Amino acid sequence: MSTHGTTPLIIDCDPGLDDAIALMVALNSSRFAVLGITAVAGNVPLRLTEYNARRLRTLLGRADVPVYAGCPRPLLQTLVTAEEIHGATGLDGAELPEPDGEAASRHAVSFLVDTLSTAPEPVTLACTAPLTNLAVALIQRPEIAAGIREVVIMGGGINRGNITPVAEFNFYADPHAARVVFESGLPITLVPLDVTHQVLVTEDVIARIRAIGNPVSHAAADLLSYYGSTRRPALAGAPLHDPCVIAYLLQRDLFGGFPADVRIETESALTIGQSVVNRRRLPDDRPAVTVLDMVDPVGVFELILAHLGPAGT
Amino acid sequence: MSTHGTTPLIIDCDPGLDDAIALMVALNSSRFAVLGITAVAGNVPLRLTEYNARRLRTLLGRADVPVYAGCPRPLLQTLVTAEEIHGATGLDGAELPEPDGEAASRHAVSFLVDTLSTAPEPVTLACTAPLTNLAVALIQRPEIAAGIREVVIMGGGINRGNITPVAEFNFYADPHAARVVFESGLPITLVPLDVTHQVLVTEDVIARIRAIGNPVSHAAADLLSYYGSTRRPALAGAPLHDPCVIAYLLQRDLFGGFPADVRIETESALTIGQSVVNRRRLPDDRPAVTVLDMVDPVGVFELILAHLGPAGT
Amino acid sequence: MSTHGTTPLIIDCDPGLDDAIALMVALNSSRFAVLGITAVAGNVPLRLTEYNARRLRTLLGRADVPVYAGCPRPLLQTLVTAEEIHGATGLDGAELPEPDGEAASRHAVSFLVDTLSTAPEPVTLACTAPLTNLAVALIQRPEIAAGIREVVIMGGGINRGNITPVAEFNFYADPHAARVVFESGLPITLVPLDVTHQVLVTEDVIARIRAIGNPVSHAAADLLSYYGSTRRPALAGAPLHDPCVIAYLLQRDLFGGFPADVRIETESALTIGQSVVNRRRLPDDRPAVTVLDMVDPVGVFELILAHLGPAGT
Amino acid sequence: MSTHGTTPLIIDCDPGLDDAIALMVALNSSRFAVLGITAVAGNVPLRLTEYNARRLRTLLGRADVPVYAGCPRPLLQTLVTAEEIHGATGLDGAELPEPDGEAASRHAVSFLVDTLSTAPEPVTLACTAPLTNLAVALIQRPEIAAGIREVVIMGGGINRGNITPVAEFNFYADPHAARVVFESGLPITLVPLDVTHQVLVTEDVIARIRAIGNPVSHAAADLLSYYGSTRRPALAGAPLHDPCVIAYLLQRDLFGGFPADVRIETESALTIGQSVVNRRRLPDDRPAVTVLDMVDPVGVFELILAHLGPAGT
Repeated sequence: MSTHGTTPLIIDCDPGLDDAIALMVALNSSRFAVLGITAVAGNVPLRLTEYNARRLRTLLGRADVPVYAGCPRPLLQTLVTAEEIHGATGLDGAELPEPDGEAASRHAVSFLVDTLSTAPEPVTLACTAPLTNLAVALIQRPEIAAGIREVVIMGGGINRGNITPVAEFNFYADPHAARVVFESGLPITLVPLDVTHQVLVTEDVIARIRAIGNPVSHAAADLLSYYGSTRRPALAGAPLHDPCVIAYLLQRDLFGGFPADVRIETESALTIGQSVVNRRRLPDDRPAVTVLDMVDPVGVFELILAHLGPAGT
Repeated sequence: MSTHGTTPLIIDCDPGLDDAIALMVALNSSRFAVLGITAVAGNVPLRLTEYNARRLRTLLGRADVPVYAGCPRPLLQTLVTAEEIHGATGLDGAELPEPDGEAASRHAVSFLVDTLSTAPEPVTLACTAPLTNLAVALIQRPEIAAGIREVVIMGGGINRGNITPVAEFNFYADPHAARVVFESGLPITLVPLDVTHQVLVTEDVIARIRAIGNPVSHAAADLLSYYGSTRRPALAGAPLHDPCVIAYLLQRDLFGGFPADVRIETESALTIGQSVVNRRRLPDDRPAVTVLDMVDPVGVFELILAHLGPAGT
Repeated sequence: MSTHGTTPLIIDCDPGLDDAIALMVALNSSRFAVLGITAVAGNVPLRLTEYNARRLRTLLGRADVPVYAGCPRPLLQTLVTAEEIHGATGLDGAELPEPDGEAASRHAVSFLVDTLSTAPEPVTLACTAPLTNLAVALIQRPEIAAGIREVVIMGGGINRGNITPVAEFNFYADPHAARVVFESGLPITLVPLDVTHQVLVTEDVIARIRAIGNPVSHAAADLLSYYGSTRRPALAGAPLHDPCVIAYLLQRDLFGGFPADVRIETESALTIGQSVVNRRRLPDDRPAVTVLDMVDPVGVFELILAHLGPAGT
Repeated sequence: MSTHGTTPLIIDCDPGLDDAIALMVALNSSRFAVLGITAVAGNVPLRLTEYNARRLRTLLGRADVPVYAGCPRPLLQTLVTAEEIHGATGLDGAELPEPDGEAASRHAVSFLVDTLSTAPEPVTLACTAPLTNLAVALIQRPEIAAGIREVVIMGGGINRGNITPVAEFNFYADPHAARVVFESGLPITLVPLDVTHQVLVTEDVIARIRAIGNPVSHAAADLLSYYGSTRRPALAGAPLHDPCVIAYLLQRDLFGGFPADVRIETESALTIGQSVVNRRRLPDDRPAVTVLDMVDPVGVFELILAHLGPAGT
């Protein structure tokens, strides 16, 4: 693979409506060399997330990007899914093509271990799902850390949860995996709910996306319409979580953040999955996590719009 | 005791600089019939908190109000104190008179149990300290709940802590006591950090207090000056936690809030003492807690100023 | 009270069939000056345990021994009771007299605090129930430790539980209270299940008790018959837990034990209430607990028989 | 490989002195078709356990058996090792040959996943180490359960621990992995400390082993001499844990046990790694674990002796 001037990237995801938009932007960008898409159980079971990843790859004409099926369950917790948000298929609301190819035969964890162990240059990981795949890879072979440039993770919240008062879905779904990743010493940027709840999908945005007028933009608009229909009424629009990870990788100055010690709660039933963000005392045994808390939502949507056009960017 | 038109009140506290201001306002108000002050270990050890309560009673000329020494330790945790905020005496910064009387011989818990069991009308509790005294009273004799009109508690936070990223000092100091109180079914109003961090003591406020020109206002100004000197630099002023409880009892329309299920974390070292506030799902086995999150800080300071004058209000 | 050559004793109990036998032996012994019986919720609710204590006092002609009602609930746990063992009244199986007097008006915790604070000589505590009363007294006024000679506690197990695979009933019912007591630094002797499951009530023992032929022995035989009827079939006889505490105080050479660090589990749902006995590493901040593990059951039954006679011993 | 009349077996281990004896017996037995040895971090770090496995393979002339390096760390815990028992190399006390070949290039987890997914007949797993490898394989691909005939595990204790009062080393070292395995629904036989502490290596046994007079028996005798030298003085001999797993597979009538629900504690610092064995209530969502508690130690040693001879059995 050629990576002249491009960022070698692995996308670890559980599509999922907002994962779908993230994949559209990433696969339409010339800035990334997408080495593979690894699917995991999360918003819907693994069987659907890897199928959905292949449907999206087909829609985007990127049969060159391999899709790997990963872990069908969290490290220890019982699988929880979110069909009430994403629909029974995980991608309700749009008609998507059948996949034009199978998933790769290798397990996503083997792909991660092999690729990161032998990468000619360090790879960036965009994580928009429960972190089971990456955690298992790190447990199997911690030395893969040397093959990772950075990990950008959608998950957690500084001051809030969405599935419980204190826990966000991705970290709640596999808190032990999140703990492994945050204890790994990897350079992590966290995109928490505090950011994504500022990036709200409005009818206006959906109309602009639809007006682009190509099959990808039509699908995106359909998915986002369904997504908006399942949001909590208290919100002005549905928070567009996962695409923020890709937007951050494409244009960092749209975001602001701070260094912090981030720990994941795994022991108490009341607070399990919470990301405890300590900005006053940084970790002394590993690099601080960059926790994003500011975002220019208009800029993020412009970036998304620019990447749903016929040629991408 | 005469309670014509007045609110029978017990103040459970650990003075402490901000407790001191709360006591000044409460004891100077004609709206309360203060049945007793119960001291507990918290900001400083019990020996000092009950001594400080008596010094303040003397300053305010309220020898009629009995002071009861309570529990010198939390239910299970090892005592933590906060001399770095309140000074070694708990009331650093001002010269206060020696007490003009001893503490009552009865234990604060016995006073609570006896008074609440036999009160002719239900009593209001203003709690500005770790909740050990009230918790122990409820464990000993749960029926005292019938003698309690309401409990207004300074503690916890919806979205923040101050002693850890997620825990506020009073609840962190005795999380198990807080859990007992919040599981008791009592009608509770919670004044969390989210409110008190809007009520910041500025130099201007201190100057206005000092300008009142009486011994109480001088002492208040001196205490607040010291209090401000120990605050974190990131804050524009020191958050005036405890007086908000008294201000709420005097003028409720200065505050806004919402009903919620509030649970206290007691099991995980990472999150112990956290108040988990769930506003989406209310408790089905007890009344919801009224959690305050809005406050008119100017109004609160006007109220405080009005009660530090020669006659009180 | 005269304590010439006698041991000043407070019995903290939740009668309960085996508590009843313990009380019979203790109140019939001339070796104890029983300062009071404190009842607590446990085998049955508090209302019944204090009523049962008074019925037994009446049966034994010991109207001089005051009975104090204590805590009706554990520190934090929801009350669990054991009517399937002790019957709906807590003393099923025998006809007992109505009490000839009321319970004392003071709360058991106040009695403990006052008595232990002012005792002319240190007092022995015999604890055969959840440890809520003692724990609350220690939380209220830790200095009472100076008034306690020793605490002999039926509870826990080195290698077993009875209500869960790892937890014994008394400690399971209020694990937090047990933790307070075992962290208190008091001199504790623990009588665990490992001892009491060697002291099995057989038909032969019951026949010998009945043959004594007085009202107390008849009641004892009736209670033990009922007790035996509810035991698990796998056991050769019902384990006579609580009387072992009194037997130990009367004749220590019937028992053998070892020093250990004992900690009480309070955090995990799976193991809550477990007493973790570490005999390899003793505590460095408090005296070791004497954990009994050996007993001469024949000797214990002879002692009991000797105390159910007309005059006691 | 031919498995006519033999048991296809994978040995998951962390040699370790007692693992070494287990490997000698297993590799010398004609009853097993050993598909592979998977090493994991445990008694000593992974680098040494996989090296030791290859040294032993070489000593036994079994270059045909592949050795796979597995996980170098537990799922979540920090690695603890036991050099104070096994020596700095993990196999102190004997001179062993250098390995005659490298470890297989595949990761032990990949080997487990691939082999168990495609096995022509179900495979038996002999597990004598922290269960990290098997847990990770189950997390990655739960369907491998269909390729497993049974899992025989050395670990835990009904009534005891060895590294803490309640936890045995293998389960303490990776409690979360043990939990995954025991929640998996696999048919498990547990060989706990209660069995292995009946199988004590005495000087007499060592002398008989040495008297066999071949290089393997000499090495075994040397290893066991070192092993005995590090045991706790309170024990009459060093408990020979791991060979009991192989002995059970070779001759089941040397052991007795019972069905039980076994759960692994993962949440409390005090009891972490404990195996809670409930024989009164069996699991309703998976097969009961067969927990061994009886053993014929003489028979076990005869079996071991018979397999250290020149030809094995």
